[in-house]
Amino acid sequence: MTEQDLTDKVVASFDTAKDERFREVMQALVRHAHAFVRETRLTEDEWSAAIAFLTAAGHLTTDTRQEFVLLSDVLGISMLTVAVNEPGLGDATESTVLGPFFVQDSPEIELGGDIAGGASGEPSWVSGTVTDTGGAPVSGARIEVWEADDDGMYDVQYDDGAGALAGRAHLFTDAEGGYRFWGLTPTPYPIPDDGPVGLLLRHAGRSPMRAPHLHFKVTAPGFQPLITHIFVADDPWLDSDSVFGVKESLVRPFDRHQAGTPTPDGRRSAGPWTSARFDIVLRKE
Amino acid sequence: MTEQDLTDKVVASFDTAKDERFREVMQALVRHAHAFVRETRLTEDEWSAAIAFLTAAGHLTTDTRQEFVLLSDVLGISMLTVAVNEPGLGDATESTVLGPFFVQDSPEIELGGDIAGGASGEPSWVSGTVTDTGGAPVSGARIEVWEADDDGMYDVQYDDGAGALAGRAHLFTDAEGGYRFWGLTPTPYPIPDDGPVGLLLRHAGRSPMRAPHLHFKVTAPGFQPLITHIFVADDPWLDSDSVFGVKESLVRPFDRHQAGTPTPDGRRSAGPWTSARFDIVLRKE
Ligand SMILES: [Fe+2]
Ligand SMILES: [Fe+2]
Repeated sequence: MTEQDLTDKVVASFDTAKDERFREVMQALVRHAHAFVRETRLTEDEWSAAIAFLTAAGHLTTDTRQEFVLLSDVLGISMLTVAVNEPGLGDATESTVLGPFFVQDSPEIELGGDIAGGASGEPSWVSGTVTDTGGAPVSGARIEVWEADDDGMYDVQYDDGAGALAGRAHLFTDAEGGYRFWGLTPTPYPIPDDGPVGLLLRHAGRSPMRAPHLHFKVTAPGFQPLITHIFVADDPWLDSDSVFGVKESLVRPFDRHQAGTPTPDGRRSAGPWTSARFDIVLRKE
Repeated sequence: MTEQDLTDKVVASFDTAKDERFREVMQALVRHAHAFVRETRLTEDEWSAAIAFLTAAGHLTTDTRQEFVLLSDVLGISMLTVAVNEPGLGDATESTVLGPFFVQDSPEIELGGDIAGGASGEPSWVSGTVTDTGGAPVSGARIEVWEADDDGMYDVQYDDGAGALAGRAHLFTDAEGGYRFWGLTPTPYPIPDDGPVGLLLRHAGRSPMRAPHLHFKVTAPGFQPLITHIFVADDPWLDSDSVFGVKESLVRPFDRHQAGTPTPDGRRSAGPWTSARFDIVLRKE
């Protein structure tokens, strides 16, 4: 039996699958996985290392630490999956990776409210509109936002803060599709690198740092959900984001304002603050 | 940025790896994984299902239950890894998969001893020689053997038998390279199918059954380690082994003997028994 015979036999073993799409995906998986093993002449030790890697990743993974998502992220698989699912965009806002820190039930805030909830960092006034691709406002769109604090940590990464949500919230657009809130000026942070994925990055000579960003998930009835970020313009990490998430169209200036400068909502900030605008265009379903 | 641009960027991110082989393997992994995602146009839901599958596999995996090895086995990746590492064989004995049930420290038995240690099943007298490819005997070769009982269970699969080794042992060849022991006539058994890999097999319409076999691991100084099985001739599962482990050269007749027939070591068996011969040829290092 040649190597190709073996591959053919494994592919054929999925012929009995009732679900056509499952069969197609599994047979493609077998063909590509086998091509990888054949091309690299993978050694038994390397195979064992792969099993040990997956085992360690599995044991580290919990509700709040997803090592397999990190693995997919640093191999660019997450970003490629985003790409293959993004149809011809027209003027719609581009997507990027969800990342491992999304939480289902965030606190709701009013328009103009503050998402910090105790997370430390420089205040940032973020505002914009949600419209359809024709420019018509989408009112009542649900906007989820989440971000790391200025120590580079998401709320769920704090051991002692189990359940204490911070740096995340959701709000709804007004009748004109407008939205506004106080967030934090995004800072660079490393993806969790104390596990097997961190080891992989070190072996690769790669940095775990992500370009500073603020996560958005925008949903509205009749529209395709949008999962994206905005990135901070002129940041040195933009060119080497560890998960390949940066798209030019998502980079936004975060304008700097001195302490005491009046803010758009009329409050005075004790310290310096920034502001950014992000107009979101949704695709119809 | 096109899909191919993204793949190129991820491949290039491994250029900084110091270890050349690591770089080569990881860059091949990225190329093949990306080709799979692009070819199948993997959906976000399918990506999420893959993450959930790996997470479940990781959480099920312990010292005695290796779901990632099972996954590799049922996708033929284990067997292909065996194949790409098997050089031109000449007359040497062929390899097959290690499987998930090997245990490092098995009991030692004398030549002619019994590996059952309480495992239930029909006695089987297994004997043969270990030689080099020139036919010279290899004395003092260490032979590890392990197998399931006639309920299709390995010792380590019994919850209540933690640490109670049964159906496994090691022994050493004599001055003429000969070996012999009492094992159990192999019976078909399902690979553990109460986890995500079992679910995958059911979706595929595939059976979890393995063709009946007895595991061997043979090591001797100056020779390449051999990991293999012998399979029972004429068994109906030979053509549909769930891990693609069967090779023709490893199929052996297990001759049947009636109760009371004298055995090769002069003991009388209360019930029927079988006998099989397996002459092992090792490659020099
Ligand atoms: Fe993030
Ligand atoms: Fe087995």
